[in-house]
Amino acid sequence: MLSRVVRIVEAFGSETPALRVSEIARRADLHVATASRLIEELVGYGWLRKEADRRVRIGVRLWELASRASPTLGLREAAMPFLEDLHAVVGHHVQLGVREEREALFVERLSAPGAVINLTRIAGRLPLHASSSGVVLLAHAPGRLQEQVLAGPLHAYTPRTVVDPGELRAMLADVRKGGVALCRGFIDTRATGVAVPLRDSENTVIAALSVIVPNDDNARMHIPALQAAARGISRAAGVQDPQGVPRHFSH
Amino acid sequence: MLSRVVRIVEAFGSETPALRVSEIARRADLHVATASRLIEELVGYGWLRKEADRRVRIGVRLWELASRASPTLGLREAAMPFLEDLHAVVGHHVQLGVREEREALFVERLSAPGAVINLTRIAGRLPLHASSSGVVLLAHAPGRLQEQVLAGPLHAYTPRTVVDPGELRAMLADVRKGGVALCRGFIDTRATGVAVPLRDSENTVIAALSVIVPNDDNARMHIPALQAAARGISRAAGVQDPQGVPRHFSH
Repeated sequence: MLSRVVRIVEAFGSETPALRVSEIARRADLHVATASRLIEELVGYGWLRKEADRRVRIGVRLWELASRASPTLGLREAAMPFLEDLHAVVGHHVQLGVREEREALFVERLSAPGAVINLTRIAGRLPLHASSSGVVLLAHAPGRLQEQVLAGPLHAYTPRTVVDPGELRAMLADVRKGGVALCRGFIDTRATGVAVPLRDSENTVIAALSVIVPNDDNARMHIPALQAAARGISRAAGVQDPQGVPRHFSH
Repeated sequence: MLSRVVRIVEAFGSETPALRVSEIARRADLHVATASRLIEELVGYGWLRKEADRRVRIGVRLWELASRASPTLGLREAAMPFLEDLHAVVGHHVQLGVREEREALFVERLSAPGAVINLTRIAGRLPLHASSSGVVLLAHAPGRLQEQVLAGPLHAYTPRTVVDPGELRAMLADVRKGGVALCRGFIDTRATGVAVPLRDSENTVIAALSVIVPNDDNARMHIPALQAAARGISRAAGVQDPQGVPRHFSH
């Protein structure tokens, strides 16, 4: 029963924010009558809502609940002023990602109109090996998880994506040593991702801060600004955690 | 059964992002054994998670689901570049609010360190009569809802909060006519809220854009920048809706 509720909500995604009842039933593997009854109940609680065209969407109430108590809220709030400053200086895309199992999950992003192409979006995911944020998060992930990722499969988005396990392993070592991942054309040949780690007060890497810029000779120039912003976020987050939770983040 | 899941998740809030199982059971009005079993199941789906200290939090997966399909995502993404520009010019706090029943729900906010005091936060709520965004949203709400709010009770946060129904009714008429709400010291005597409506392509008010600035003679100066940003957001949102949903927003 609980799993049915989960499957109904999981039917929605960034590509499918509005669905008909019959589509939800199919995706959730439920009879239409069962899905319809549960959907009506969830609509009553504000977790889902029905549009005038009878399509169903996630309700604002569910977004509100998840956002107010979000485990990444403290991190995002501490990071936002620094993301803004970085965005003002670098232009293009600035983003904050955390590791969720074998993927990078982007929890904040600032973009400019006309910025270079970027596949990520807020609450979007990418495989760890394919983006600069992911490479930083993978480089500092537990050894067992690194081995699982290195064992593949490793999808090549472009001819530049590093999918050779030996080459990727060497890159991870470089990232741990140099403190920065610079990924030219890994996802789109026109773009370069530059990412640095964000650490908590115990020096554990909890997130990655990255910029997506054009794939040209200027990409390295952004490293000092990124590193300074990462230090600022870590300091701000340690000081101003509003909820009295431990000073290190959950991520 | 479905209501139990809802009550468990509703137990969390911005003031209570981490709870013990016994606290969740009490808030959800469930036996501890029942709550404990459902919580374990939700942890299994990533909707909740258990910290090392055994406290429970909202899981990143629930935030991700709610954010990816959020009905306000299109609005927030369209608004963000304009919020950033406004924030760079005005400083202090810039925020975007939508009406949820009888309250203003803030869906985005940019703040500067050292900015004037501000009670709102992302996914925070305020009564409609008490904030500049709320007054804008109330002024354009259905007449029946306006009458319900005017019938009270109307909480006075400060001696400046307008709680007299006749005075509030006159203010709402002024806001509809003038296109701006300027609320001096309604929530904190040191701060002034200035808000303008955001309209969809059918001219319906779907959100309010506001700045929170010091309560001094300069507050009115920000009105033109706010109005220009509101027009920009409406135009950008109408054009670049990424999901092919109707050109007007759900809010």
